[in-house]
Amino acid sequence: MSFSPLVDRLLESLRVLPGVGPKTAQRMALHLLERDREGGRRLASVLDQALEHVGYCRRCRTLTEEALCSICSSSRRDGSVLCIVESPADLLAIEDAGGYRGYYYVLHGHLSPLDGIGPEDIGLDQLEARLDEGGVEEVILATNPTVEGEATAHYIAEQIRERGLRLSRLAYGLPMGGELEYVDGGTLSRAFNGRQPFLGE
Amino acid sequence: MSFSPLVDRLLESLRVLPGVGPKTAQRMALHLLERDREGGRRLASVLDQALEHVGYCRRCRTLTEEALCSICSSSRRDGSVLCIVESPADLLAIEDAGGYRGYYYVLHGHLSPLDGIGPEDIGLDQLEARLDEGGVEEVILATNPTVEGEATAHYIAEQIRERGLRLSRLAYGLPMGGELEYVDGGTLSRAFNGRQPFLGE
Repeated sequence: MSFSPLVDRLLESLRVLPGVGPKTAQRMALHLLERDREGGRRLASVLDQALEHVGYCRRCRTLTEEALCSICSSSRRDGSVLCIVESPADLLAIEDAGGYRGYYYVLHGHLSPLDGIGPEDIGLDQLEARLDEGGVEEVILATNPTVEGEATAHYIAEQIRERGLRLSRLAYGLPMGGELEYVDGGTLSRAFNGRQPFLGE
Repeated sequence: MSFSPLVDRLLESLRVLPGVGPKTAQRMALHLLERDREGGRRLASVLDQALEHVGYCRRCRTLTEEALCSICSSSRRDGSVLCIVESPADLLAIEDAGGYRGYYYVLHGHLSPLDGIGPEDIGLDQLEARLDEGGVEEVILATNPTVEGEATAHYIAEQIRERGLRLSRLAYGLPMGGELEYVDGGTLSRAFNGRQPFLGE
């Protein structure tokens, strides 16, 4: 059973959203049609504009509708550090955590030869150009702590090693607030290997 | 921290969808911008069209972009029964359950004097006109089993009583597949009061 062709198409279109199944799509469609047409119109219009205008920052490749994103166009960041992340969401998570004041470079993915995703697909040629600009002294390889993220970090490290920059990788260890007994073995052994001097008072 | 004004507006616009908080909105926006721009464009366009064209069926008031919905324009339904529901989602649930072959009437809400929602706001004047057409012999009051749904059912029953139609209400009782020990007291006492002759073989 269905409402009408157009409502059916709306239900189907809503399912492009991640995590939205048939039941949620129905709830969303009915909510917009029954209770918030104004909000729905705004969503349609903003979505259309965003898809039309939002592209990649010329310098760090994060999402922005400007030529340069707000971070790259800021002069108050530390130009000696460049943090390489897989996605704009990772960049956001680091910014939200606070503390980091350098610039970023967004890969939009990781190397995955089996899927045909090679160095150019994650912008490594452009990364070279970015480093050619000079000023960067340390590159932080903040790709995900997954097999693909590790491989990508290693590949990048290999590629830019001859530049003589300091290369670092985010620390592995226990997540804050977690309980030791629930931490997986791989993380636990990394935390042991990476143990640091205790600076209690 | 945020991406850019336009992406921020997209995050905010996505939050009109029910059940979508800041984190989900971010995941949706990044998914569309990073991985499915085509799907996003289709969503924006279909949403816009749906909000523009989908209105209420002239006869039963469910959602449709046609003058008459597919049920009301079907001649193979039983014109002697009219089922009154609060929302198009309720209509859909009854259709999906199968078995009912009559027509519907959608209130789009329930009486709620405190919120200023009176009989005209839920289309009761139009319901009278629908019944004036003739042919209906039984009205099933399928409003929700809530205080407001009950009150609305009683109000409608009172209003159309003089027409001498058969009036019925969906049965209260145990939900199928539930366990007695977890059924609430109100439902359980309704199930006792409404107990029916056992027709075991």
